[in-house]
Amino acid sequence: MKILIEREPLMASIQNVMKAISSKPTIPILSGIKLEANQQEVTLTGSNSDITIESIIPSEEDGVVNIHEIVPGSVVIQAKFLPEIIRKLPENQVELSVDDDMNVLIKSGHAEFKLNGQDTEEYPQLPVLQTDNSFHLQIDLLKMLIRQTNFAVSVSETRPILTGVHLKLENEQLELVATDSHRLASRKINMTDTDGLTFNNVVIPGKSLSELNKILDDTQEPIQISVTDNQILFRTKHLYFLSRLLDGNYPETSRLIPNQSKTVVNVNSKDLIESIDRASLLAKDNRNNIVKLVTQGQNILQITSHSPEIGYVEETLETNAIEGEELKISFNAKYMIDALKAIGTDQVSINFTGAMRPFIMQPDEDDEPILQLITPVRTY
Amino acid sequence: MKILIEREPLMASIQNVMKAISSKPTIPILSGIKLEANQQEVTLTGSNSDITIESIIPSEEDGVVNIHEIVPGSVVIQAKFLPEIIRKLPENQVELSVDDDMNVLIKSGHAEFKLNGQDTEEYPQLPVLQTDNSFHLQIDLLKMLIRQTNFAVSVSETRPILTGVHLKLENEQLELVATDSHRLASRKINMTDTDGLTFNNVVIPGKSLSELNKILDDTQEPIQISVTDNQILFRTKHLYFLSRLLDGNYPETSRLIPNQSKTVVNVNSKDLIESIDRASLLAKDNRNNIVKLVTQGQNILQITSHSPEIGYVEETLETNAIEGEELKISFNAKYMIDALKAIGTDQVSINFTGAMRPFIMQPDEDDEPILQLITPVRTY
Repeated sequence: MKILIEREPLMASIQNVMKAISSKPTIPILSGIKLEANQQEVTLTGSNSDITIESIIPSEEDGVVNIHEIVPGSVVIQAKFLPEIIRKLPENQVELSVDDDMNVLIKSGHAEFKLNGQDTEEYPQLPVLQTDNSFHLQIDLLKMLIRQTNFAVSVSETRPILTGVHLKLENEQLELVATDSHRLASRKINMTDTDGLTFNNVVIPGKSLSELNKILDDTQEPIQISVTDNQILFRTKHLYFLSRLLDGNYPETSRLIPNQSKTVVNVNSKDLIESIDRASLLAKDNRNNIVKLVTQGQNILQITSHSPEIGYVEETLETNAIEGEELKISFNAKYMIDALKAIGTDQVSINFTGAMRPFIMQPDEDDEPILQLITPVRTY
Repeated sequence: MKILIEREPLMASIQNVMKAISSKPTIPILSGIKLEANQQEVTLTGSNSDITIESIIPSEEDGVVNIHEIVPGSVVIQAKFLPEIIRKLPENQVELSVDDDMNVLIKSGHAEFKLNGQDTEEYPQLPVLQTDNSFHLQIDLLKMLIRQTNFAVSVSETRPILTGVHLKLENEQLELVATDSHRLASRKINMTDTDGLTFNNVVIPGKSLSELNKILDDTQEPIQISVTDNQILFRTKHLYFLSRLLDGNYPETSRLIPNQSKTVVNVNSKDLIESIDRASLLAKDNRNNIVKLVTQGQNILQITSHSPEIGYVEETLETNAIEGEELKISFNAKYMIDALKAIGTDQVSINFTGAMRPFIMQPDEDDEPILQLITPVRTY
């Protein structure tokens, strides 16, 4: 095997597949990157027990030549130092060749690296995914869906199923839900072109979605999503991203969402985020980061926090409107800021049903079916 | 006490004095920032057992008003959250006032922080330094002197005196030396205006110099340096930086520097840094980060490194000239890169006296009296 390749696309591909490579792999060869060259393209693969990433570098695309010379072949290269080696090479072109003893020779200018390679025979076979059950999204939309829900997954392994995002496709509607049982994030979008495809119990590990979000560029290109019983494949032109699914049944979350409200606050998101952020400066000194919110009349929110050692902070914030009962409520400041940022609209509507009941937040406009729920903290 | 002050200069001052504040202070009140206001200015002080920093905010300077209102007074404020609080305030102006119970009230827009303050009576008295033994440098020059020597101080407490930079002023020449006994950095400059001032055993803790370098802006303004038996004071218009000196006698280092050479290499610094940097990628896999250098003929350097697990790297580098005996030598790559960066000139001259003797590096030009010494590693 021998390729003469541009450094930049090679570097980008390596960085993508590195996201699947664990520093403590379950089998030793998975600490390496698999490299396969055929006449048209070079494919890099990285894998761990949860995800597998394949990145394809086409020889030429849109008139840009990525690979100047290919002698087909394959090898597994130790991943640990590879990104640094490629990044620091002196020239823009890299010659990578493999001899019969699986020694990898990387040449660029006057620099020459000889790395120990391994036979790809040793590399585990990747599952071939039946891609009948597929649907498409725009990449930028998928990234937004991940951003709006994935932060709310549980970081504790007490209930493993909650460390994933629940995906449901029913009646031409795709719904994502994440909850750590203290807060919940939900997002729906209407789909066309699903060909009657439905599924209900797909739970994707939160970590997989984080890595996928990092790899994908914010473009309007399509991404194909294929689902089986225990795996999900995301596929773009040059990328395969395969993740295992979580075992078990995701809890029924719709009944957690209150369908009435006693106090409704309509407020500018940015102002509210900044006020809570300041109040939480002192709240962080306690372990649980609690701030208190009190309605004052028709349009003032008072936000306070207290740390016995440091002091007291008080913010008053003018809202667009406060309707319904007076309210005093306490909650985790970080949950609130996360949720407001996920909603991302200028104005937000908050629906409370009393100091001890979960409250929900939604965009002021009706057209974005996003909902964030937070369980308050008992302080009164 | 009450001040109405611009947020930006207050923020900058707080960040400066924070560099002296330890998270585990020897006496509790030193976890706070001392704030003193008189009619002309506000002075902030932070201190730990090694350094004390005072930062002065003048009421008005060069037509720019920093403080709009001053009622004189003083207070010590818990430093832990102060930078974040001031940074996140909603308005550009900050009102800071202290009541009779030493409660500090910080107001800006609709945000109000009430912090627990302490009486400045509790704050330790700072030593007043006799400033007869003073000399001046330009700030940018002082920063360069620190950068060219301070990296070579020892990080181990085995010989505490080596954790500092040795300062000597004799015959109108200022000399800085740092060594960890494996490498040595030395820099001399000629002084005028020293008024016959001499000293020989001033050893400044490396950490103090790092902090000082961070605080000082790269300007041509003068800085006054005053030395006593156990302290050194750096003083600019708005900053006092007081550091303790290290106890003990600094070793005589001049005899370590070889005064002859058997092989002289003249080479482009940047090329050499990049080659060694690449070679060291594999060397880092060993604990000691060793690369090997071999001269080849009149102008080629071969730089190699080897890691049994990962592989082998070889660089060839064209030099300007190699004179004298052939040479094979091994050294710590990080030491070499540090030294070349400290020299900072385009071309560098390296003088070797055999594979087992320390070698020295100097700028190709004669006018910068900087010298870097590295002890090789035995590998042959």
